Amino acid sequence: MKKFRFRCMNCSRLYEENDVEYTCPQCGTRLGTLETLYDFDNISIKKSDFDSCSDIWQFEALLPVSAKSFRVNLKIGTTPLYRFENLSGVKEVQIKYDGTTPTASFKDRATVIAVNRAVEKNYSSIYCASTGNAAASLAGLSAAAGLKAYIFIPSKAPAAKIAQLMVYNAMILAIDSDYDTAFDLSMKIGEEKNWYCRNSAVNPYLIEGKKTAAMEICVQTEFDPPDTVVVPVGDGTVISSFYKGFSDFYNAGIIKKIPQLIGVQASGANSLELAFKKGEPFWPVDFSGKTIADSINVGKPRDFLKACTYIKKSKGDLISVTDDEILSAQKELASSTGIFSEPAGAASYAALKKLVHENRIEKSSRVCLAVTGNGLKDISAVSSCKTVEHLKPDVQDIKEYLDFKETYGDESYDEN
Amino acid sequence: MKKFRFRCMNCSRLYEENDVEYTCPQCGTRLGTLETLYDFDNISIKKSDFDSCSDIWQFEALLPVSAKSFRVNLKIGTTPLYRFENLSGVKEVQIKYDGTTPTASFKDRATVIAVNRAVEKNYSSIYCASTGNAAASLAGLSAAAGLKAYIFIPSKAPAAKIAQLMVYNAMILAIDSDYDTAFDLSMKIGEEKNWYCRNSAVNPYLIEGKKTAAMEICVQTEFDPPDTVVVPVGDGTVISSFYKGFSDFYNAGIIKKIPQLIGVQASGANSLELAFKKGEPFWPVDFSGKTIADSINVGKPRDFLKACTYIKKSKGDLISVTDDEILSAQKELASSTGIFSEPAGAASYAALKKLVHENRIEKSSRVCLAVTGNGLKDISAVSSCKTVEHLKPDVQDIKEYLDFKETYGDESYDEN
Repeated sequence: MKKFRFRCMNCSRLYEENDVEYTCPQCGTRLGTLETLYDFDNISIKKSDFDSCSDIWQFEALLPVSAKSFRVNLKIGTTPLYRFENLSGVKEVQIKYDGTTPTASFKDRATVIAVNRAVEKNYSSIYCASTGNAAASLAGLSAAAGLKAYIFIPSKAPAAKIAQLMVYNAMILAIDSDYDTAFDLSMKIGEEKNWYCRNSAVNPYLIEGKKTAAMEICVQTEFDPPDTVVVPVGDGTVISSFYKGFSDFYNAGIIKKIPQLIGVQASGANSLELAFKKGEPFWPVDFSGKTIADSINVGKPRDFLKACTYIKKSKGDLISVTDDEILSAQKELASSTGIFSEPAGAASYAALKKLVHENRIEKSSRVCLAVTGNGLKDISAVSSCKTVEHLKPDVQDIKEYLDFKETYGDESYDEN
Repeated sequence: MKKFRFRCMNCSRLYEENDVEYTCPQCGTRLGTLETLYDFDNISIKKSDFDSCSDIWQFEALLPVSAKSFRVNLKIGTTPLYRFENLSGVKEVQIKYDGTTPTASFKDRATVIAVNRAVEKNYSSIYCASTGNAAASLAGLSAAAGLKAYIFIPSKAPAAKIAQLMVYNAMILAIDSDYDTAFDLSMKIGEEKNWYCRNSAVNPYLIEGKKTAAMEICVQTEFDPPDTVVVPVGDGTVISSFYKGFSDFYNAGIIKKIPQLIGVQASGANSLELAFKKGEPFWPVDFSGKTIADSINVGKPRDFLKACTYIKKSKGDLISVTDDEILSAQKELASSTGIFSEPAGAASYAALKKLVHENRIEKSSRVCLAVTGNGLKDISAVSSCKTVEHLKPDVQDIKEYLDFKETYGDESYDEN
């Protein structure tokens, strides 16, 4: 048997690597997402093969790439896993912080595999639709790999993410609509142009890169992963990838349990939560989402079937949090730990607080929060919440301002 | 002898650790910067003590901290060292990229030592003046350490850096003036309030943290550091720290040569270059600086004496580049390597291009560029250079736009 093959999430048909590029031809783009199966009988890996230092290529035995294939010259992998005692009253909270990747989000883990594949298949152009992070990631890694990137993005994406596209010299297609529309448009045009597709859920290689975050958590906890992992959910690909990483390691005999996965959505864009609650057979509940957390502002989740299936297998659940809860969590996380997350990433901390408040999590448990993007990627929420008062360059004036602030806190200061 | 002591850069007086907190009392704040001397006869370190994975504490034998002192719960150290062949025609260009630290700039290396010291000395408050990066760094690491941070910053600092101060809950003192004025004000008020001082050049512990970047370069090149290192220069503390890192390793027998150091300044804020060119005895040439690269927008460089002395010792030089050269280098670096640097960080790449163009660097040499901050920290320069055209969500319209752009490049598109 080859190193890996694909199985359709819907009809369970099996495909060899070269039989299919993206989704199951029988079941179509939405239902026919593929999962990658490895031949565990012929894969021989052991704990000591891995360390808390190397990049994602240390997991090559469980990646759909060959040892000598193209590798981009940027370090992706082994982001920090921080540990905190009694954060929100939970015994051990771990934070897997992916704000330190080359383009400052989790999405680099997927892009690096897509870029590898595009180069190996002799594509010169690659495209994606994205709320912003996958876009910036594809633009950055394409620049490093010498590929031309075409990016379909909602025109309202945060300025910092668009600046990344500009500086990386990507072709920016800023659509006056939402992510879901940009996605459908990209599929039509990308296929016609014969560009390589880096669209979430459609391209089965992406999740294989993303799963390395879960594998790193195993390595960083000495192969004793946490009881629960909380993951922000838009399309559902990230939480699916956590399951895949843990289950591949479980099937390879590297870990003894698969953590429970809790997906967190914004309450204004919780269609995956709704689909999950309706139960099996899982079916999409699409609507037009609205949340300040742009990275999870998805109304038509592309990976709903895999996400629902895997969350159920992990004995997990999906919950939602309000935008206010997200923003308050973002600030509390930063000011208590020094970790600045973008709003979507902070949703996992908001979820932890809610789960604790509702007694839905054991306080004695070990919980890992996936913080999937750097706060610098979207400062609008932080910047709009208060005005910075400008001070005259005068010692006495500044001291009076300080006295006022130490007495009255956030009340606004009127120097007259 | 104790592990370390201080020597005044100006009068060469020696001080024990507890004799002095900041600068030489005889020579004052500007001239009396201190350097930290270690007792190399009693320090026993070897190459195998170090690796390309650990944080800065691996260098503890050459840091002014004790083994059991406070350590903040954020990973600082071992940022990537990327290698490129024939970038700008030079055989081997290395890029030491510090955009991946917790607050996304080189300054975390200094702050982590300052925060250690403040906690050990039982301070609850700490302050700095900063063009932006040291501010964000102090705010973030103080949040993690439970210290109250007071930040004096020019009110025109980039929005992302101010957003970091807000989210980390620092006390922001946004002064309607330049960095140099903010610095002087901070010294007056900070001393009166008895807050711990994290001001560049004044606090001798900072450079000891910063020097770990040079030490990491040694480790990452298997102790065969590059011929030349190019470093952006504002106050002069960063380039001084590179010399200190290399020379401490040289004195400890870990490396066999100290690389030549080239400082790069913005041509609108090149007072350190002017001071260096006038020769010894070095004396400040202050004026009001103006450059788009806010992190090196310094007119009154605080570490001029140490920087000039160390650059001269390394047989190095200082050059300056225009804002246009910096912006063009920022874009070229990002679009050819995938590395997004803030403008000040890209100055080192602009300098490389200039040195190559003027035949001032051997093309066969190995050159390392210090890229000291993440591009996400200041997107204004990138965002303002072109407008993103918004497209209707229509396949035909998008295809016409693509055809136009592939034919006419950056010309603006008028869909009518």
